[in-house]
Amino acid sequence: MISSETNQQVKDIIKLQKQAKYRNKTSLFITEGIKMISEAACSGSLVKIYISKSIMEGRKDIPEKLLKEYPYEIVSDKVFSHISDTVTTQGILGIAKQPVYNIEDILNDERHMWLLLDDVRDPGNLGTILRTAEGAGMSAVIMGKGTADLFNPKTVRSTMGAIFRMPFIYASDITDIILNIKNNGYNVYGTAIEGSILYDKADYTRGAGIVIGNEANGISDRVMGYITDRISIPMEGGIESLNAAVAAAVVMYEAARQRRAGC
Amino acid sequence: MISSETNQQVKDIIKLQKQAKYRNKTSLFITEGIKMISEAACSGSLVKIYISKSIMEGRKDIPEKLLKEYPYEIVSDKVFSHISDTVTTQGILGIAKQPVYNIEDILNDERHMWLLLDDVRDPGNLGTILRTAEGAGMSAVIMGKGTADLFNPKTVRSTMGAIFRMPFIYASDITDIILNIKNNGYNVYGTAIEGSILYDKADYTRGAGIVIGNEANGISDRVMGYITDRISIPMEGGIESLNAAVAAAVVMYEAARQRRAGC
Repeated sequence: MISSETNQQVKDIIKLQKQAKYRNKTSLFITEGIKMISEAACSGSLVKIYISKSIMEGRKDIPEKLLKEYPYEIVSDKVFSHISDTVTTQGILGIAKQPVYNIEDILNDERHMWLLLDDVRDPGNLGTILRTAEGAGMSAVIMGKGTADLFNPKTVRSTMGAIFRMPFIYASDITDIILNIKNNGYNVYGTAIEGSILYDKADYTRGAGIVIGNEANGISDRVMGYITDRISIPMEGGIESLNAAVAAAVVMYEAARQRRAGC
Repeated sequence: MISSETNQQVKDIIKLQKQAKYRNKTSLFITEGIKMISEAACSGSLVKIYISKSIMEGRKDIPEKLLKEYPYEIVSDKVFSHISDTVTTQGILGIAKQPVYNIEDILNDERHMWLLLDDVRDPGNLGTILRTAEGAGMSAVIMGKGTADLFNPKTVRSTMGAIFRMPFIYASDITDIILNIKNNGYNVYGTAIEGSILYDKADYTRGAGIVIGNEANGISDRVMGYITDRISIPMEGGIESLNAAVAAAVVMYEAARQRRAGC
């Protein structure tokens, strides 16, 4: 049992929790809770499991299959609360490999529906967006530089498992991807406060790219220069904008609705 | 200038930040930042302003009108960081009266579109829902017991000002309100994983109630007994549910879309 906070594995887990740089260097990240760890196992990403002493003694909640198939370590409750990022911990945590996707596969996906993020900064928003994109049946989420780190513990949690299933990629320049999508014959719509068309008047039935911008400033002028049309979500009352995850959801689900209806 | 943490006003502000009970007892709450305080002033809710010494010295960002029309106190920077709930404070904070709405006015609103929340627990979700409801042109947000406290600092922030404009009410039993809406001739739809109809096949054009349930458990069985139809949002991939604020947004904006289109 690991019962010291100076244990090297403990130190590594804390670095993976707190440092994006260390996550990138190792291509690993931390996921917590039985559900997320089971998802990590299903997707082939799970590397190792850490379980708190009291949870291990109860045991009944932990699938036997996980303990048989993956290396695990027991951790004293005190040390576990130290390595967990959550306030009310489930007492089980896993190290997982970061999923890797290929841009060609993403661009060739038969659904032809891509969500592009230009500088979305809030970790919770990013996780919720990935979760919603999976639900709405998007091909992938493509993130420009400046977008929050998907492997931040808060982001991982708010994906509710989508991080192990939904294709994504960080692009060094999303305008390259936008050009690629347009060259393949699809429109790329950018959400804006002042749109040239309402979001529900855009046609998503044959496939499309949808760009969501930064929480405070929207899509950058540079990226706006590459899109097909600005789309706007009508807003009543005195609000100036919608939350970025909400705006993404409204447009992605309108696209899904049109594609179900065929018009 | 207030420079002691034991000052009675400082103690009161901290109680208003931290204790729902004290907020309810006094019918007051705290709002932070110039934008939110300006909204509070516009809506007639603002009571008093507290400004950090260094912000007051810079001054240019604070509208003169606010300082002329409302009582204010200067607070030392150290004490201000103590009373602020935000990590990067704007150095200005206000005490505001809780807006009060009348259930008859809410039920008689000419838009006839009501959002009902059955036990939504996450403060951030609740704030985002109020903000989205304003944007989507809903009549009001009606909250059942168990719903998070709208005057929680995190919720207030995530409304982005909607808290000062969007009508809302806490109902001791939302089934009473559901019955009322139905007796007035409107359908009340409840979101569910297994719906009897897809959310976009429900008709919102004449007006409707929309019920959103708890993040983990959805709408309670008791409340489900009162609705007209269960509606579901189709989900692809492996996700089990959508975030509550996302689900609310998707349905409210589908209603708004139908009402613009007239069908």
